[in-house]
Amino acid sequence: MAKELTSKEENYSQWYNDLVSKADLAENSAVRGCMVIKPYGYAIWEKMQAALDQMFKDTGHENAYFPLFIPKSFFSKEASHVEGFAKECAVVTHYRLKNDPNGKGIIVDPEAKLEEELIIRPTSETIIWSTYKNWVQSYRDLPILVNQWANVVRWEMRTRMFLRTAEFLWQEGHTAHESREEALEETERMINVYADFVENYMAVPVIKGAKSEHERFAGALETYSIEALMQDGKALQSGTSHFLGQNFAKAFEVQFTSREGKLEYVWATSWGVSTRLIGALIMAHSDNNGLVLPPKLAPIQVVIVPIYKNFDQLAQISEKVKVLVEKLKSKGIRVKYDDRDSQRPGWKFAEYEMKGVPVRLAIGPRDLENGSVEIARRDTLEKMVEQLEGIENLIENLLVEIQGNIYNKALRFREENTTKVDTYEEFKERLISKPGFILAHWDGTYETEAIIKEETKATIRCIPFDSVEEEGKCILTGKPSKRRVLFALSY
Amino acid sequence: MAKELTSKEENYSQWYNDLVSKADLAENSAVRGCMVIKPYGYAIWEKMQAALDQMFKDTGHENAYFPLFIPKSFFSKEASHVEGFAKECAVVTHYRLKNDPNGKGIIVDPEAKLEEELIIRPTSETIIWSTYKNWVQSYRDLPILVNQWANVVRWEMRTRMFLRTAEFLWQEGHTAHESREEALEETERMINVYADFVENYMAVPVIKGAKSEHERFAGALETYSIEALMQDGKALQSGTSHFLGQNFAKAFEVQFTSREGKLEYVWATSWGVSTRLIGALIMAHSDNNGLVLPPKLAPIQVVIVPIYKNFDQLAQISEKVKVLVEKLKSKGIRVKYDDRDSQRPGWKFAEYEMKGVPVRLAIGPRDLENGSVEIARRDTLEKMVEQLEGIENLIENLLVEIQGNIYNKALRFREENTTKVDTYEEFKERLISKPGFILAHWDGTYETEAIIKEETKATIRCIPFDSVEEEGKCILTGKPSKRRVLFALSY
Repeated sequence: MAKELTSKEENYSQWYNDLVSKADLAENSAVRGCMVIKPYGYAIWEKMQAALDQMFKDTGHENAYFPLFIPKSFFSKEASHVEGFAKECAVVTHYRLKNDPNGKGIIVDPEAKLEEELIIRPTSETIIWSTYKNWVQSYRDLPILVNQWANVVRWEMRTRMFLRTAEFLWQEGHTAHESREEALEETERMINVYADFVENYMAVPVIKGAKSEHERFAGALETYSIEALMQDGKALQSGTSHFLGQNFAKAFEVQFTSREGKLEYVWATSWGVSTRLIGALIMAHSDNNGLVLPPKLAPIQVVIVPIYKNFDQLAQISEKVKVLVEKLKSKGIRVKYDDRDSQRPGWKFAEYEMKGVPVRLAIGPRDLENGSVEIARRDTLEKMVEQLEGIENLIENLLVEIQGNIYNKALRFREENTTKVDTYEEFKERLISKPGFILAHWDGTYETEAIIKEETKATIRCIPFDSVEEEGKCILTGKPSKRRVLFALSY
Repeated sequence: MAKELTSKEENYSQWYNDLVSKADLAENSAVRGCMVIKPYGYAIWEKMQAALDQMFKDTGHENAYFPLFIPKSFFSKEASHVEGFAKECAVVTHYRLKNDPNGKGIIVDPEAKLEEELIIRPTSETIIWSTYKNWVQSYRDLPILVNQWANVVRWEMRTRMFLRTAEFLWQEGHTAHESREEALEETERMINVYADFVENYMAVPVIKGAKSEHERFAGALETYSIEALMQDGKALQSGTSHFLGQNFAKAFEVQFTSREGKLEYVWATSWGVSTRLIGALIMAHSDNNGLVLPPKLAPIQVVIVPIYKNFDQLAQISEKVKVLVEKLKSKGIRVKYDDRDSQRPGWKFAEYEMKGVPVRLAIGPRDLENGSVEIARRDTLEKMVEQLEGIENLIENLLVEIQGNIYNKALRFREENTTKVDTYEEFKERLISKPGFILAHWDGTYETEAIIKEETKATIRCIPFDSVEEEGKCILTGKPSKRRVLFALSY
């Protein structure tokens, strides 16, 4: 029996959980809030990592690795950072276990208490800037363009696989510059890299913009984000890039001698994306049959299923398939031939639909006679019969077409679910009747932002870079506004 | 002024520390026992990861990710494992910080105490086998061939960069099988993969063998290791592969229905290598001028340094170099052109020698006239002048030659420092006068092993797979022995 999902129309949240589980992406672990990323889910993360890592290197960055532990006192050094990060986190207090003297297993050795507690990094600005202090003397030591692939821990109370877990995997870039301009340029460069990746690899259109002051990263002077719209009409923040000014340099006393011979504080940025992107990927494209993966990130791009009544037929099919597999591989296409006899073709079809494999080929006895093959597209669920001869070229083009089609479908969805709204009534009504992106005027104050959030749960996702200057009135207060900002309910 | 190292003859240990620091590989962090892996050191690790990861995939393995945290009770489940691992480790007891009510920074919130303490993984057998329980019902679910790239923490008291640090990076393979034979085969397959990698990429010859019962991994029925000889005559264990029998399956109740329809416990292996390999790489090849890197793992394989008196000359050189760089890149060679005007050629020469770049090219005004280039090999420090035209082919071959030469040099060193010894007197004398690998007879008992270790600090590194059967007498007790085992002082 094929696996079945709760339909997303019936219960979107359950549909998501079912999908994560039934497509073998991840599962909950024995540790509260921590997930196990299963091989199929991790293979998607590896594809993401490979593409991003190359993009980081192409923009001049190098990887390094900093400690998992941060001394507690470091968090107190940057005032706004401590408020944002040093609260819900895992604290290491001891460094030894011992046998229970009463013979009941093992206990924490009370004598092995740390003088200063260590925090498992929720983000690494503090430990990294304490290190950069030793790396920078002169402007010649700048810029530092470093990225780290790592695990981080934030003790979230309500967790959800990929979207919000206590431990998650991410990359965090931390750069140091000699001027404000250069750091701002870097902040913008990296949000563009993220947008490029999410749009061109994940096939998810995004809106780039600046966060409102209140929604900024703890310790940042400016936070840029990319916001993607999920199929339930909620926004998902998919990547952020922060201009940190001289805040961390001042907190950790990182100064350099400038070209003019003056002692100055270094300018900083940081930027990151995480395994949360897998959540975005799932929610942006998938349907009630399972995952829909864009070919560029699909661990398996093409699966071939033989249809046969006896082993003689299977042998004949396998002979043809062997040649095709080699041709596809030589084009760099990731292909799997599933000739397991333990499962029936129908079961396999459902399984690879669940797993979002972009192209499925089926070859049966009639195809052997006719020199044909059945091609099924995961994105449209269309089927067609084509000649086997030269099929590799058709498949190569089809993968490109599917990548584009998935993106265009998501873009259409976003366009259909983005509305300009001019009154608070309409705003509230919209959030209930058809949630999505809402472009509305805002008076720029935190008070207004807070009231809207309190009353509707919608937040300002960003002030889009491409928003046009226009005269308007704040939907809540009626005060004058120069541009529309992007509101939405969000993950 | 170029950086200088303590000579290794004068103080090997200081030479190593100087090298790690001056070649920009790593540095100590603000957290006791944890290091910062700097970009150049991390670039070597990335090369190692890429090669190993491909070898794992070629042998059928997939990557996954399991939690950083392990519930304390898990360690008590496998009796011998708890003795070996659950002692010196980082213990998370709380999950929240709060502002000190007395206004003195932040403190651990006493109300946020975990019900059960969490241990930062020192190795992941327990959390992984608690997960495999859900993955296995029938023999059809086997084998599970999973690897994880991760950070682990062991609270070491005496640390040394790369060789022994509280936190380190590694990979750990954890496989599950339906039979003892298949698991043993996997254990052997992976020690062969490691030996292949260390010999062919790191250019370090190794001896493969089985650990004595006492030196086995906690919870293993058999531990295979590869042992490499460092230039100070000490052995460095460079990788291990463990046959775990059914110990973890029994501890976590992982059973499957066999082909015969019986309920049986699953058979396990685990295997790992870590950033320790970077320590081995450094110590096996480097000299008093700095690192010597084998081309296959060198982040920069070829560096080009221009020698010029004025910018006009530099421009002419750069024009020639630009063409050469493209030719080298098209051959997949990692090349850097260092045309910084802020440093003199002599400084650059010393810098790239320190960093172990295998091939250095220098082009000056006379070379421009003659169409020539000076080539310097890092491994032999030889220089030669060659025609620039077609130099890319010569360099390609030279890199292969250097890789082979470095390996052969290390192999010769090992041969010259491996001795067969038949008396305990000679054994002890040898460890003082010329430490190295010692092949000697042992009666097979833990008592003898312990006395030898106590008296000489030498340990049985392994019982080599290729040791020939021969009649002999234990060097300590004179009792009969069937084969020689490998002794050495070790890291």
